[in-house]
Amino acid sequence: MNLPVINDTGRFVFCRIMNLEERIKLSETRVFKTVFPNNTNHYDTLFGGTALSMMDEVAFIAATRFTRLRCVTVSSDRIDFTHPIPAGTIIELVGTVVEVGNTSMKVRVDIFVEQMYEQGREKAVSGLFTFVALDEHNKPTKVLSKESN
Amino acid sequence: MNLPVINDTGRFVFCRIMNLEERIKLSETRVFKTVFPNNTNHYDTLFGGTALSMMDEVAFIAATRFTRLRCVTVSSDRIDFTHPIPAGTIIELVGTVVEVGNTSMKVRVDIFVEQMYEQGREKAVSGLFTFVALDEHNKPTKVLSKESN
Amino acid sequence: MNLPVINDTGRFVFCRIMNLEERIKLSETRVFKTVFPNNTNHYDTLFGGTALSMMDEVAFIAATRFTRLRCVTVSSDRIDFTHPIPAGTIIELVGTVVEVGNTSMKVRVDIFVEQMYEQGREKAVSGLFTFVALDEHNKPTKVLSKESN
Amino acid sequence: MNLPVINDTGRFVFCRIMNLEERIKLSETRVFKTVFPNNTNHYDTLFGGTALSMMDEVAFIAATRFTRLRCVTVSSDRIDFTHPIPAGTIIELVGTVVEVGNTSMKVRVDIFVEQMYEQGREKAVSGLFTFVALDEHNKPTKVLSKESN
Amino acid sequence: MNLPVINDTGRFVFCRIMNLEERIKLSETRVFKTVFPNNTNHYDTLFGGTALSMMDEVAFIAATRFTRLRCVTVSSDRIDFTHPIPAGTIIELVGTVVEVGNTSMKVRVDIFVEQMYEQGREKAVSGLFTFVALDEHNKPTKVLSKESN
Amino acid sequence: MNLPVINDTGRFVFCRIMNLEERIKLSETRVFKTVFPNNTNHYDTLFGGTALSMMDEVAFIAATRFTRLRCVTVSSDRIDFTHPIPAGTIIELVGTVVEVGNTSMKVRVDIFVEQMYEQGREKAVSGLFTFVALDEHNKPTKVLSKESN
Repeated sequence: MNLPVINDTGRFVFCRIMNLEERIKLSETRVFKTVFPNNTNHYDTLFGGTALSMMDEVAFIAATRFTRLRCVTVSSDRIDFTHPIPAGTIIELVGTVVEVGNTSMKVRVDIFVEQMYEQGREKAVSGLFTFVALDEHNKPTKVLSKESN
Repeated sequence: MNLPVINDTGRFVFCRIMNLEERIKLSETRVFKTVFPNNTNHYDTLFGGTALSMMDEVAFIAATRFTRLRCVTVSSDRIDFTHPIPAGTIIELVGTVVEVGNTSMKVRVDIFVEQMYEQGREKAVSGLFTFVALDEHNKPTKVLSKESN
Repeated sequence: MNLPVINDTGRFVFCRIMNLEERIKLSETRVFKTVFPNNTNHYDTLFGGTALSMMDEVAFIAATRFTRLRCVTVSSDRIDFTHPIPAGTIIELVGTVVEVGNTSMKVRVDIFVEQMYEQGREKAVSGLFTFVALDEHNKPTKVLSKESN
Repeated sequence: MNLPVINDTGRFVFCRIMNLEERIKLSETRVFKTVFPNNTNHYDTLFGGTALSMMDEVAFIAATRFTRLRCVTVSSDRIDFTHPIPAGTIIELVGTVVEVGNTSMKVRVDIFVEQMYEQGREKAVSGLFTFVALDEHNKPTKVLSKESN
Repeated sequence: MNLPVINDTGRFVFCRIMNLEERIKLSETRVFKTVFPNNTNHYDTLFGGTALSMMDEVAFIAATRFTRLRCVTVSSDRIDFTHPIPAGTIIELVGTVVEVGNTSMKVRVDIFVEQMYEQGREKAVSGLFTFVALDEHNKPTKVLSKESN
Repeated sequence: MNLPVINDTGRFVFCRIMNLEERIKLSETRVFKTVFPNNTNHYDTLFGGTALSMMDEVAFIAATRFTRLRCVTVSSDRIDFTHPIPAGTIIELVGTVVEVGNTSMKVRVDIFVEQMYEQGREKAVSGLFTFVALDEHNKPTKVLSKESN
């Protein structure tokens, strides 16, 4: 995993990274959802927009649980919808912090699809969201300013 | 964990239970959610009804992923709302199969609350949901009739 | 009807019960709803979770209209889903206060199903919800502290 | 109550009207609802559009339960919003068939507002909706073609 | 276009009307929407109530953008549902200020239906909504009290 | 505007582009929306996910109205959220086809924010969505295979 922690010397980076990996593991955010008529279009597949909306919420929760600071979405990177997601399936969204900058962080969100009545799953969508951490005056602040404990 | 598997002899039960524990672990279902104005009441806490609705969906997904058969809710057991869940928090629902009968199974769903800007969490609600597995004629069928693989 | 009013002597109980019955009648809460694609699952029946959510809202309104005090859900008792509720039907939820304690009360909610194009109805779901009445400091207070008028 | 039943002679009208009144009473449709942040605007009052939407659903249910035939909305008459409906209140919608034509009927829907912590209510909105009854070929058919039983 | 501007002399009316027409053009409000299972009934057509709710929101936005003052819905005039709107189509709502009074204004909202895979459209619903403009004390105020710029 | 129309000779390109510009103008898709408590987070600004979801719907409608063929979302390009969108404002989404390929097309969606009680607007979000056109066998087909008329 590529974690470019800025403004830290070598010795501390090592400890910091251990800490980071733990924080990243703890902030991983999962959401299961059934794909039913109330979130599908007239092709009987999940709305692209609903997928985007759920991905942003999962990414926001992962970022907030990682920093324990106010987070706002700065941008979403290119998102590919490689497989349509049919009605009557189960999806799981998994959000993980994958890059930690000074005042911003990137969260990857994958959507996996499972058939209801079969084992196995496949990845259908994947995207990267960037968040900035804010202090109480709504100014960008260091992502790692809160000690993990 | 108490897993009363019915109609099996001792030797096979041992293997079966190993299998069951794995299936149970794999079918565990987690959902994170932010508590925002669109799901809170005028006391600024999560609607009890919204909590119940999300718990049933999580339980349904866990039961379906465990059996890989059609499942319908038969009943919910007594559910205690021990802590109100305030707006501006993050909740996680965790659904786990805790009892496997012949044609029915029980799923426990816990709701944990996390403050956004602090580490730590506490359990706020816990409930048990019973599902029955159905065959293609909508008749109750053995929960374990589909081989796990 | 079984109304165990606590801490009252016989003579007053008689008057109180009359009053109670009237209050109970006045606080009865009814909600009709059509079962349409936006609240059904992939079996074309009402989500169990949507039923639970609507039951809690009806129970909350009945409790509030009975006490005219702040009410919060304490627990839901065992709820049996005896009949699935198909899409294209009409349901009515009826919430009635059925037990009045010192600081808490129980509300029963029944769901009846009607076919759209036939007379008659049948009970599909029934459940009991317990609420506690709170004063302005969010402390439990006597359910009957507000005079009915 | 003014019930212009068309195409009937005097003697039968008398019986019919008795029947009608009973059908009207039985088809009366009530819906309670809490006014919470998820259905209010930035003035903290119920959206006019949400009120209209709920009124149409209540009117549709009343018309369907009266005729037990397919019904579609033909028009809504002038609707006056005499009182704003503030957040934190309880409303009841009451739908009643008030006029029965050959293939159409009119349903009046009133919305009453109750404060949560006080007795009493006042009418806030009132409207008339016209429905036409359809046969299986989607052609207008007699509202009273199905015998009540 | 019929614009009865009250309390103005001839010469100024001419200028004012030019101004008005520009303001009316600028405040025109359009909303496209797909008709999908989450907003259709069991006849696979758009709910009448959803149409009314969307019409009121469009009218509210047009009125607010015209006056740039607080606006509340006073009434809706008779609305005719001349064509059912089937699932799988696209609708456009168009809201235009059509009458400007002293403290109130009327907005007409038309709904047009387009087939997804054919050119052309037809009008399906049309309605008039009346709004009143309010000052900071919630008293009716002149619709044109804010200078357009 | 950059419109790389593939596989056409010069003379026809000229006519085609005229045609294209007209089709693009006709397929422009606008949606106004009020930002109210039911679509804002606990910072009182529009959810990023809701913005993404609305942008995808607007882009889908523009693409469908341009080709009059089945369209599915292939990807969204990088989207920057340059300004937060506060509660109590009005937004307009504008979707325009900006690039036409053989079987795919790109749609740009801008979100503009207006204060309710002031003239003027500013762009808050902008994004590009790519759609592919499908034939009746769900295979990619020429975007311009349907004659405009």
